[in-house]
Amino acid sequence: MDSSPSLNRVALTKSRIEALCDGVFAIAMTLMIFNIKVPEIPKDLVRTQIAHEVFLLWPKLLVYFISFVMLGVYWIGHHNQYHYILSTDRAFLWINIFFLACVSLLPFSAGLLGQYPAERTAHVVYGVNLILIGGFLYEHWQYATRGRRLVVSDIRLEVVGLAKRRILMAPVAALVAIGIAFLSTRLSLALFVAIPLLYIVPGRIDRHWPGSPGKDSG
Amino acid sequence: MDSSPSLNRVALTKSRIEALCDGVFAIAMTLMIFNIKVPEIPKDLVRTQIAHEVFLLWPKLLVYFISFVMLGVYWIGHHNQYHYILSTDRAFLWINIFFLACVSLLPFSAGLLGQYPAERTAHVVYGVNLILIGGFLYEHWQYATRGRRLVVSDIRLEVVGLAKRRILMAPVAALVAIGIAFLSTRLSLALFVAIPLLYIVPGRIDRHWPGSPGKDSG
Amino acid sequence: MDSSPSLNRVALTKSRIEALCDGVFAIAMTLMIFNIKVPEIPKDLVRTQIAHEVFLLWPKLLVYFISFVMLGVYWIGHHNQYHYILSTDRAFLWINIFFLACVSLLPFSAGLLGQYPAERTAHVVYGVNLILIGGFLYEHWQYATRGRRLVVSDIRLEVVGLAKRRILMAPVAALVAIGIAFLSTRLSLALFVAIPLLYIVPGRIDRHWPGSPGKDSG
Amino acid sequence: MDSSPSLNRVALTKSRIEALCDGVFAIAMTLMIFNIKVPEIPKDLVRTQIAHEVFLLWPKLLVYFISFVMLGVYWIGHHNQYHYILSTDRAFLWINIFFLACVSLLPFSAGLLGQYPAERTAHVVYGVNLILIGGFLYEHWQYATRGRRLVVSDIRLEVVGLAKRRILMAPVAALVAIGIAFLSTRLSLALFVAIPLLYIVPGRIDRHWPGSPGKDSG
Repeated sequence: MDSSPSLNRVALTKSRIEALCDGVFAIAMTLMIFNIKVPEIPKDLVRTQIAHEVFLLWPKLLVYFISFVMLGVYWIGHHNQYHYILSTDRAFLWINIFFLACVSLLPFSAGLLGQYPAERTAHVVYGVNLILIGGFLYEHWQYATRGRRLVVSDIRLEVVGLAKRRILMAPVAALVAIGIAFLSTRLSLALFVAIPLLYIVPGRIDRHWPGSPGKDSG
Repeated sequence: MDSSPSLNRVALTKSRIEALCDGVFAIAMTLMIFNIKVPEIPKDLVRTQIAHEVFLLWPKLLVYFISFVMLGVYWIGHHNQYHYILSTDRAFLWINIFFLACVSLLPFSAGLLGQYPAERTAHVVYGVNLILIGGFLYEHWQYATRGRRLVVSDIRLEVVGLAKRRILMAPVAALVAIGIAFLSTRLSLALFVAIPLLYIVPGRIDRHWPGSPGKDSG
Repeated sequence: MDSSPSLNRVALTKSRIEALCDGVFAIAMTLMIFNIKVPEIPKDLVRTQIAHEVFLLWPKLLVYFISFVMLGVYWIGHHNQYHYILSTDRAFLWINIFFLACVSLLPFSAGLLGQYPAERTAHVVYGVNLILIGGFLYEHWQYATRGRRLVVSDIRLEVVGLAKRRILMAPVAALVAIGIAFLSTRLSLALFVAIPLLYIVPGRIDRHWPGSPGKDSG
Repeated sequence: MDSSPSLNRVALTKSRIEALCDGVFAIAMTLMIFNIKVPEIPKDLVRTQIAHEVFLLWPKLLVYFISFVMLGVYWIGHHNQYHYILSTDRAFLWINIFFLACVSLLPFSAGLLGQYPAERTAHVVYGVNLILIGGFLYEHWQYATRGRRLVVSDIRLEVVGLAKRRILMAPVAALVAIGIAFLSTRLSLALFVAIPLLYIVPGRIDRHWPGSPGKDSG
């Protein structure tokens, strides 16, 4: 700490942003369970109704899982960027705050979609929320890598570009889902289910990702 | 940081997964208290009714404690695996996300069981949730240890196997509890109470666990 | 990491317990705000009623502050113990889990006391909860220090004893408050307000506490 | 750990305060989303009403964003102080606890303002809450820097003073907003929207802030 105070301070900044992000993501993910309320059933109907009432929760459960996994996608995306990010500045902190404000909005949008899965409005709100999160994540990367401002100096332009395209997949798909919702909310819901799969199935960027096998284990 | 950037990045990945897990576990554990609502009593009945109304909360309180301790069991299980895990990859991250999605579901299942402790459906949902968490925790270990993919190279096969059996105790007992719930929900509840005891009472695996006494203090 | 793997693993264990504790404490503290609901006022009465309705929330606000500060007291107490604790074992992990289960119960007890500040039952529940948290914190210290099991080897018996007495102040005062509640809930509430002051005002233990001034700054 | 136990213990204290703060901030920020409830619409009116009902949530959404960003402002302010803070003491811990108790109150105040954006009382409560948070943050800095008690010894008085003025901007502006609320709640709301901009637009202090560009990247 005494020998290199400034380096230490920078590391602190970076690690505290990550701590706040991990916190907000963990909470937003976990809070979404509150959109699935335990059904209130009159006492004399409990025995006959409870299985059916629980079954009726399936759209909420589906939206819970999609949204949890989508937040996972964005968390991993944010997290991967920090493999390359070395330093921070005030503007970068603010991009993070706005990003997190949109992340933390998802429990509401997911609640709306789970409650009204057949309504266009719910699909538009949910899609716009996904676009906002993805947009700030894109700006986060764009700001950090522009002129190698905050990233490691040996980052390859190819990695920067691949990461950008990878980040944009979700907001672009969400935009398509919003359009489709005006034709069929079932199709739109199916597309929302499909978005995480774009990320779970490994792509070209993975070979450049520090956490991939063959690099870590070595 | 400069001398070994890749090692540092890997450590970051591992520590951020742990941070997200600790966050989700802490939140899921703490949120379960919301299943125990402060009873709303009409003003003129408060004095005479409050003790009784609080007493009536005991099934919810019992389920709260079982579930808190079960999440503790799974958190310790997850945590113990990281003593041996050195690196991560994308698939492993996703196993963690799915694991956490099931962890975060428990406040709902616990709410259902606390509200309807005499209903089979609630026992089935709760048991399935425990099985899902345990299943992903098993897969987490299985994936990391298969061919020593992500773990320390000197891990003994005996430890891998003992850990697997230890992880499976809870989901197997939960499966039995689901079966028993069709005979008696009281017996099933008693079994859910008993599951954590399987873990609190020390077993053979403990001698191999790095945090055990005689190894740490040395 | 390579030179001393076992030490590293132990440090991991200790730091992850602390991470879970910090998480549960932060969440339990913050969740208590939900006991103070925004009053629902009919539209035509808002202008004339809102100030009065907000004023009526004062007992809830008071209990919120007492409870937040009490959790602060216990968090600091737990935190101070870790200055001396070097290692962990399975039983110690479980003491932590039970401790946290009681910490996480306080939002409920605080909600009950804030809702029914004139009812003995609420005072008993709140006091018992404080006693449970303090009791597990005592056991936490007792277990770690018995035969210097998990603590630094140069810890003085005087420090061990002073810390024990300091931990016991809150549960003993809570026990007295429960007794007083049978005479007057106002007096009991006043005592609950006073408990944190026992800790905020510095005592003899502070001179031995590593974080105290004159030691840190040197 | 063995060579410099006391230094290590101090670092632990500092990092655990930061962990608790990051936790409370992350949770308070994320919980505010619960002030925006999914509208409950009778089944036959859903199709025609949902868009309008969602639109009616805009004041709550606005207050959510203001409050999230304000907590961001305070989090960054707290965080920046720790670049200079080296050690802690018991009184400093307590300033942190009171600070966090006020941070954690904001979800309530924000809920009140979002629900009753045209009512003076809501503006007063919200403003007082911002003043309390800012006041404790000021005291936090004042306490740490008085006689360079807990900060790096080479801190310049100019930095101490600039940071104080920067911290005071928000509470002073909130005081003005409270005054204005007695004339027009619209104007007052506009001022609450404007407060974060005072911080997002870079000021003179930024040149001295360790995380600013040109210092980090070097």
